[in-house]
Amino acid sequence: MNNETSFPTIGILGGGQLGRMSALAALSMGVRVKTLSPTASGPEAHIGDVTVGDWNDPAIMAAFVNGCDVVTVESEWAPAELAEAVRDPATAVWPSSKTLKIIRHKGRQKKALEAAGIPVPEFQICGSLSEAKEAFSRFGHRVVAKKFEGSYDGYGNATVQSLKELDVAWNDLSSEDGLLIESFVPFTRELAMMVARSSSGESVVYPLVWTEQKDHRCHAVTAPSPSSDRTQQVARKMALAAADAVSVVGLLGVEFFELENGDLLVNELAPRPHNTGHFTIEACHTSQFENHVRSILNWPLGDANLQVPAAVMVNLLGKRSGLVQTTGLEAAMGISGASIHIYGKHETRPNRKMGHVTVTASDSGTARSKAEQAASLIIL
Amino acid sequence: MNNETSFPTIGILGGGQLGRMSALAALSMGVRVKTLSPTASGPEAHIGDVTVGDWNDPAIMAAFVNGCDVVTVESEWAPAELAEAVRDPATAVWPSSKTLKIIRHKGRQKKALEAAGIPVPEFQICGSLSEAKEAFSRFGHRVVAKKFEGSYDGYGNATVQSLKELDVAWNDLSSEDGLLIESFVPFTRELAMMVARSSSGESVVYPLVWTEQKDHRCHAVTAPSPSSDRTQQVARKMALAAADAVSVVGLLGVEFFELENGDLLVNELAPRPHNTGHFTIEACHTSQFENHVRSILNWPLGDANLQVPAAVMVNLLGKRSGLVQTTGLEAAMGISGASIHIYGKHETRPNRKMGHVTVTASDSGTARSKAEQAASLIIL
Repeated sequence: MNNETSFPTIGILGGGQLGRMSALAALSMGVRVKTLSPTASGPEAHIGDVTVGDWNDPAIMAAFVNGCDVVTVESEWAPAELAEAVRDPATAVWPSSKTLKIIRHKGRQKKALEAAGIPVPEFQICGSLSEAKEAFSRFGHRVVAKKFEGSYDGYGNATVQSLKELDVAWNDLSSEDGLLIESFVPFTRELAMMVARSSSGESVVYPLVWTEQKDHRCHAVTAPSPSSDRTQQVARKMALAAADAVSVVGLLGVEFFELENGDLLVNELAPRPHNTGHFTIEACHTSQFENHVRSILNWPLGDANLQVPAAVMVNLLGKRSGLVQTTGLEAAMGISGASIHIYGKHETRPNRKMGHVTVTASDSGTARSKAEQAASLIIL
Repeated sequence: MNNETSFPTIGILGGGQLGRMSALAALSMGVRVKTLSPTASGPEAHIGDVTVGDWNDPAIMAAFVNGCDVVTVESEWAPAELAEAVRDPATAVWPSSKTLKIIRHKGRQKKALEAAGIPVPEFQICGSLSEAKEAFSRFGHRVVAKKFEGSYDGYGNATVQSLKELDVAWNDLSSEDGLLIESFVPFTRELAMMVARSSSGESVVYPLVWTEQKDHRCHAVTAPSPSSDRTQQVARKMALAAADAVSVVGLLGVEFFELENGDLLVNELAPRPHNTGHFTIEACHTSQFENHVRSILNWPLGDANLQVPAAVMVNLLGKRSGLVQTTGLEAAMGISGASIHIYGKHETRPNRKMGHVTVTASDSGTARSKAEQAASLIIL
């Protein structure tokens, strides 16, 4: 460990809420922040040294990475390859494009997890419709078809229960290299866990949380998850193994299916701070955003344990379209104990992530009802 | 309460750590931030819309306050009068120059507290050396002489135990309107409490804390203070009465002397977020900085209670002079649970406030030893 530190500069590729909250955490520690994003959407404004420009332009990227000690991404789709290509040798890019390449492609991601011995839903990488039909039959005529790249929040996925539906899914979702077919998992709960991992290999694991979706989008996150101790231990081992399997440096969000018998399967990975980790700002000794910054700088990682008995986060999703005009913000501030985060997006649209509310309490029931109440009052 | 809110803009007069942490809290809630400070000292950089310029210039101040919903100060010495003079009628200035005028002058401040029936050390506003001598005699030949304006952290104060020392103090510290002479208080502990008060008069009170000084400067703050329940109740009443007495809108730091019998006297007031309230970022549901922003916007105030059993904050004071070159930052990050805040000042000098460390824990002993350990490793 280098004991002589002047304050480093991190570069964040991305101008959304994950970059914004990472930047705020970095600034609190005296770390300098630059951001590069292709559009001025709002969350990036006035936080750090902001560049809005075409990040696929090598000259723009080179000017941006120049002077950064580390460059990171707020999304697996940011052009880390270009940052790596134009960087000075002294500038690190974390997570690496190698990690991103694995995670972006759901087939490669599943294979990496399987190769590491991590339980995942049964899956088949199908290069042709006939292979997809064979998998459909083998998995008991109930499968989920997933586009290899670009599927999220219910987009690019389809539950398939007939050959006719399989035809439709193949037409809609397959790409040149085919389609991912997974066995349908009759899960009882969706869970998630965040891992922070530095380039030295040090890792810390956040508490297992219970994530509830509405319309395929994250609605509420409860920490800790009401799962057994054994399940929490198993999740921990699986999350750490997943972080090693994809060699992530930075944050890794690990999404699980919990089965009726308590067994876990890994559903998906995200190589960055994650919506299911926002509760850590108030609830843990060190937030996911601070540990993201620490891990990419290869600084010692902070304590990821809860500092409160329970916390619940509820997302604030857009309810209309157009420029943001908020109602109910002050009323929500009246819910004592509600921490209201607004991402500063200029425009809203239905189901866009516009902010979130976190409440910490002595029990998750109290936290839940306050967080739901505050969130329900705010129209964004 | 107005239920229709677009996101307001606050203007902060001041570019130091208090403005910086207030700005970070505002940005998290989606509130827009402008800052104006006379010099680019570092903490203001890249956080909000930054103006560095002569804030005594009416044109510069007018350009700054234009478009702010509320203007606030990070120090009682910021030119709130000019902000009030050049503002648009729709722009509020909180705290008001009237509040600041009372608090800036230690004689007026003491009289306001006394008039409100709040216990303070015996004092005499002395217009002449002979009046000072009379007070010295009346208070038992052991007094503290205080400059009316500009005394802080041991500067502008003198403990006086002889007529010769009184002569020196009069020469060094008296101004045109004289000198404040206070009876020396044999306190057992120094305590503090933060109050947030909005323009509607809503107030919340933070936990009473124990503040320890080294060389007249705040070294450590322990929350909650190890005082009796009765003392905590009394402090609460006194702090709320003090906030009303000076009609503060925003934050008010109230410093107390605790006597051997548990009685409290108010020592001093600060009309802004306060060093003794930094622990609230991690330890309370709503931080002093967030409640500062809420109170000046007349939004409902957040829950000021502890969300953890105990917290200790230790200041990071400058140890040398010149441009900041840090050592030990990474080692300090290795103290699990330490939240390290660095203010981004370009230059350091001995005893300058450069940052702070907060640790939350199940007991204050654990928090204290970790916070001291982390703080001792960082040389700024």
